[in-house]
Amino acid sequence: MSSSPTMNDVARVAGVALKTVSRYVNGETNINPQMAERIRDAITSLGYRRNLAAASIRPGRTSRVIGLVIGDLSNPYYSTIARAVESVVDAHGFLLTTASSDENGDRHDRLVDRLMEQRVDALIIVPPKNVARTWDQVPPPVPPLVLIDRPAPGVRADVVLADNAGGAFAATQELLAQGSERVAFVGDALTIYTMSERHRGYLSALEHAGAVHADALVHTRAHSLEDAAAIVTTLLENGSADAIFAANNRAAIGAVLAFRTLGRRVPLIGFDDFEAAPLVTPAVSVVSQDVALMGRTAAELALSRIDGDSSEPTVHTLDTRLILRGSELRA
Amino acid sequence: MSSSPTMNDVARVAGVALKTVSRYVNGETNINPQMAERIRDAITSLGYRRNLAAASIRPGRTSRVIGLVIGDLSNPYYSTIARAVESVVDAHGFLLTTASSDENGDRHDRLVDRLMEQRVDALIIVPPKNVARTWDQVPPPVPPLVLIDRPAPGVRADVVLADNAGGAFAATQELLAQGSERVAFVGDALTIYTMSERHRGYLSALEHAGAVHADALVHTRAHSLEDAAAIVTTLLENGSADAIFAANNRAAIGAVLAFRTLGRRVPLIGFDDFEAAPLVTPAVSVVSQDVALMGRTAAELALSRIDGDSSEPTVHTLDTRLILRGSELRA
Repeated sequence: MSSSPTMNDVARVAGVALKTVSRYVNGETNINPQMAERIRDAITSLGYRRNLAAASIRPGRTSRVIGLVIGDLSNPYYSTIARAVESVVDAHGFLLTTASSDENGDRHDRLVDRLMEQRVDALIIVPPKNVARTWDQVPPPVPPLVLIDRPAPGVRADVVLADNAGGAFAATQELLAQGSERVAFVGDALTIYTMSERHRGYLSALEHAGAVHADALVHTRAHSLEDAAAIVTTLLENGSADAIFAANNRAAIGAVLAFRTLGRRVPLIGFDDFEAAPLVTPAVSVVSQDVALMGRTAAELALSRIDGDSSEPTVHTLDTRLILRGSELRA
Repeated sequence: MSSSPTMNDVARVAGVALKTVSRYVNGETNINPQMAERIRDAITSLGYRRNLAAASIRPGRTSRVIGLVIGDLSNPYYSTIARAVESVVDAHGFLLTTASSDENGDRHDRLVDRLMEQRVDALIIVPPKNVARTWDQVPPPVPPLVLIDRPAPGVRADVVLADNAGGAFAATQELLAQGSERVAFVGDALTIYTMSERHRGYLSALEHAGAVHADALVHTRAHSLEDAAAIVTTLLENGSADAIFAANNRAAIGAVLAFRTLGRRVPLIGFDDFEAAPLVTPAVSVVSQDVALMGRTAAELALSRIDGDSSEPTVHTLDTRLILRGSELRA
């Protein structure tokens, strides 16, 4: 036997067909467990190891790695996406390389280039808030591309979005139904796609109900918990708002902090669920996105493109869900 | 110019030294910004792209990828580690491939094999709770290896741990100092390294103070929030405990839920900080690990080994910090 054992050696020692060994090492899971154990033992005793870095440069072979570029891996929104993508692609024998853009366009572009250098089989991308290069400026070949959470300019790619406008409409409508008349929007800059969509849904609900909409009620500078808490404190102190639609997590947590400091509150609904939401008093009602489903959908689209699907790119808009826990009620 | 532009072509078009282009494409950040911009423009106009998959199979060249195997990427503890590792290795031009073992030994071993097939330059590993193969059974060559959070049998590797026993000692001591006499331990199985260490610190504080330690106060089956809530409910209802040391997040959140349902509480300190801890009433006091520092330390150790450091493996035990927010006090 040569010093570098081959897949054929593994098949011989395990007493199974070469094709079965190939399926095993490619991570397929529907293999007879006894065969899988024999293959595993043969691999261990022979010290067999594939060299996928070498395989990926042969024509028609791939690295069996998918690249994921997100905003920040330590943000639960993105780590939930990453885990969901991983769970789908792992079942097909792919590894996942994750990279955080910090919403910085130049950094995002550098990471995309690095991943393409690594010959990833597909890219799943959350476009950065601050776009630098557009996709039509990226030198080909570009691997199959799926976008999550936000569209991007100049690109032919499958896109997976949440129904941001629909979710914001439902939240605002609920606050109005509870008797609120001056619902404030507390969120981030409207140059961010998801914020702009949530603002659109908020306005649409106000118009639908014939309710007050005033510029003084729309606050788009809640970049941190502290910003949001300060905005909500002012809104309560000057009495300009009688309910808060918090257009992201940070804004909702900031509102809770402001309520606690002031010792009083107004009805509140947030956008995006968060760990603390059910634990605070009153528990925070939210518009919930199925973030894991977004990740799984994106992964399935990427795998389908890797398998050769060349049909027109699609846009998948996933429903949101209004979870009422108490904070939407009057104190 | 050939149809496949080289790094030399980039250097010529950008009007900089080949070495500077090399540093740029290797991700080094201390490059004159104007030079970096010229290189970037040259890369874009030429459509230059490295093939790192090919580079990694040439002798002495590497994939410039680090592999990270953790329990579950969607768990904030692990995603914080992953982001911290990423931030360090990215500054040195490395990508990070992350994989979740779900604490399953067989799965962990398969992921380690896949990452080694991909020729990662180093492996950073959180050993699974249920170990299958030991490291001395892994066929060489094994890349440099750093362990986080828990040691593993049969391995020569740098290890980065939190001072679990010291943190548990401090928490238990604080509860006793507040006048509690029967401090319960609510956590997971003591077969888990971190649990066993925290239990050791808890016992040590009880002994140090000459306080009651009874088997009836030690509960190691809080595998879920619901389990923990049920255990704490029983402890309060039968009056056997007058304070709770919750040995992980789940146990602390479960205790908060039990307190809310019962409408009464006892002093509580948890282990590991969590997003909701400062937001609930009373805010939950915790032993805090510097999880990001653990990730950064592991990444620096891995890079140092990649750079050829062949000194004896080291164990780094990082301090924990007691954060008192109110829940440690009597109601």
